[in-house]
Amino acid sequence: MSEHALRSVVSIHRSEADDPTSPVQRFGPDEPLMLDAGVALAPWQIAYQTYGTLNEDRSNAILVCHALTGDQHVANRHPVTGKPGWWETLIGPGRPIDTGRYFVICANVIGGCLGTTGPASTRQDTGGPWALDFPLVTIRDMVRAQAMLVDRLGIPNLFCVVGGSMGGMQVLQWAVSYPERVFAALPIATGARHSAQNIAFHEVGRQAIMADPDWRRGRYLDEGVRPGKGLAVARMGAHITYLSESALHRKFGRSLQNRAAPTFSFDADFQIESYLRHQGSSFVERFDPNSYLYVTRAMDYFDIAADYDGQLARAFRGSPTRFLVMSFTSDWLFPTRDSRAIVHALNAGGAQVGFVEIETDKGHDAFLLDEPEMFAAARGFLDAAAVARGIA
Amino acid sequence: MSEHALRSVVSIHRSEADDPTSPVQRFGPDEPLMLDAGVALAPWQIAYQTYGTLNEDRSNAILVCHALTGDQHVANRHPVTGKPGWWETLIGPGRPIDTGRYFVICANVIGGCLGTTGPASTRQDTGGPWALDFPLVTIRDMVRAQAMLVDRLGIPNLFCVVGGSMGGMQVLQWAVSYPERVFAALPIATGARHSAQNIAFHEVGRQAIMADPDWRRGRYLDEGVRPGKGLAVARMGAHITYLSESALHRKFGRSLQNRAAPTFSFDADFQIESYLRHQGSSFVERFDPNSYLYVTRAMDYFDIAADYDGQLARAFRGSPTRFLVMSFTSDWLFPTRDSRAIVHALNAGGAQVGFVEIETDKGHDAFLLDEPEMFAAARGFLDAAAVARGIA
Repeated sequence: MSEHALRSVVSIHRSEADDPTSPVQRFGPDEPLMLDAGVALAPWQIAYQTYGTLNEDRSNAILVCHALTGDQHVANRHPVTGKPGWWETLIGPGRPIDTGRYFVICANVIGGCLGTTGPASTRQDTGGPWALDFPLVTIRDMVRAQAMLVDRLGIPNLFCVVGGSMGGMQVLQWAVSYPERVFAALPIATGARHSAQNIAFHEVGRQAIMADPDWRRGRYLDEGVRPGKGLAVARMGAHITYLSESALHRKFGRSLQNRAAPTFSFDADFQIESYLRHQGSSFVERFDPNSYLYVTRAMDYFDIAADYDGQLARAFRGSPTRFLVMSFTSDWLFPTRDSRAIVHALNAGGAQVGFVEIETDKGHDAFLLDEPEMFAAARGFLDAAAVARGIA
Repeated sequence: MSEHALRSVVSIHRSEADDPTSPVQRFGPDEPLMLDAGVALAPWQIAYQTYGTLNEDRSNAILVCHALTGDQHVANRHPVTGKPGWWETLIGPGRPIDTGRYFVICANVIGGCLGTTGPASTRQDTGGPWALDFPLVTIRDMVRAQAMLVDRLGIPNLFCVVGGSMGGMQVLQWAVSYPERVFAALPIATGARHSAQNIAFHEVGRQAIMADPDWRRGRYLDEGVRPGKGLAVARMGAHITYLSESALHRKFGRSLQNRAAPTFSFDADFQIESYLRHQGSSFVERFDPNSYLYVTRAMDYFDIAADYDGQLARAFRGSPTRFLVMSFTSDWLFPTRDSRAIVHALNAGGAQVGFVEIETDKGHDAFLLDEPEMFAAARGFLDAAAVARGIA
């Protein structure tokens, strides 16, 4: 990539961070976002997409929460990559989350880089990017920001909150922070806390970014550079954890890349190498490196039970929400035992909960893929919840 | 670390690469090492340690093969780190590999950085370091080099070849390349080929090193710098794969590092972060970054069956060697199914083979740790083999 091309990527990022291709709700000095870090963030903004129509009762709103590297473009073409929405298999007309029936909202998380205030956003006081002066955020902060958006949209409570991975963490946090505002909750491929191994993988990714001299202690936007190599390495490592050994074996095995024999060099001899390098370089075009630091950190800090003397069941005690928890057999990032821990806590807390473990070799990323069992379970859960809520 | 301290680390590495704290066997222009890459490497040298005494029959020699980041200092204090030998739990007076009874040899692999010729070694023709002009090497090349060392030491055949991980790959290759020279073979926590997932993790590590601007396309020694940050990131990522989720949970969990609450910063809040950072930075002091590229690549290329139409059993057909294969329940880098594949192939090939799967939560690194079951199995296997071979 030429010097020139790299600069244009940098400016795309500044533009999407401040002035995204999405509706934005702005909150002024009198409406700060109160962060767990003890900071009152103001002014701030949240970028979001909506699909479908809010009914007269305002009872058919579904909030979709995105994962680490996701964004609000859940069911429309992505403005930067030009690709379809990341969950168009699940959400759309006639889909399990039927936009002919439900009003679907998806917002970029606080700390993100697609229009909600984050480290790549411009500070009003200095006119420069926040960079590392942006306060650390948590999953609870993401949910607080979403709640203020939902208020602003005039929606008293949500029919359902749904999300996978970090999105599932937000679903759980919604049910804990605002139990009366969540009729149904659908956390997928997630956990009630981030494990030591997951923290470890995130830390390697952060160190890869910070080791890139173009990171400039976070001030790369000011200095017109970009730690793209570090971010690509971080993404490559993380991407392995989203798949499974058996899927990698099935898809790539030890197949060579367009050659009959190894080159005895450090070229991408194996298809898996070429695939990973592509994952790294394409990610760099759409994601802000500092955002990656902030959002991974938010996941690491996530531990619902920590606020309840380590007893997860207490967090859910008396919850009025109905839950469906889903996991995938080959997911080793958020294995089924993490979902079972949530289910046990919900049961112990007296909540209404269903659980589905889906047999697949696709690993953690299965929640983003064509998984008919997941679609069927989601559809059945929402249909039953819609009857219970009296949505036509 | 100051500029000055960094330079002194660089010179330690050059010194150990050319003039190690170990005996060395040198091979001149008439004794090239014939590499799989099609290169006749000459001159070259191999650095090694020995323990115990070769008996009159020359029948009690055990060759120990080291893993990716290991070296020849298997049972003596390490000259660079000052730490005990990496397998002193297994090897020494009265240990399962009893140096009062056996003559133990351990050599640095070809491509390594502790005295055997590798990318950090000085080229005779240019007087500069080989760097990326060093030819790619394979596990079979490592074994060829060891065979030339064993010849030089006047040992016609080995009582046993033993090693874990990449060391285990060499054990298998010995049994295939020189079946008549291996009486007993003890491959531990290994596989007959490197999996797609393992290649993927290695590729991330290599990209982390190459992304470091101080790598200088491999010419960092010439330019007086060192890609230490890239190497540290590579090591951090790899280190996670050597452990297990349950061991990480048991040892670290979500415990904070010397603090009561998270700092809401990118400091190493969690103990696991601090531990990983230490693993990264201490590794940098003892290992050459280019060697890391070469040796990981050798593992990636490893696939014994590839030379036998994909039929592993054919590689071992009629093998006179007796084998004990060992694996660990929580090893996800070389899971038990990889060991079972070896055992099935040995059985199908008509070889004599035992198999032990050891229950532990310590992951792949268990082979380096205090595992009484491993010690007992190794001792029993060697005792029986010694009787069969007539070693007193």
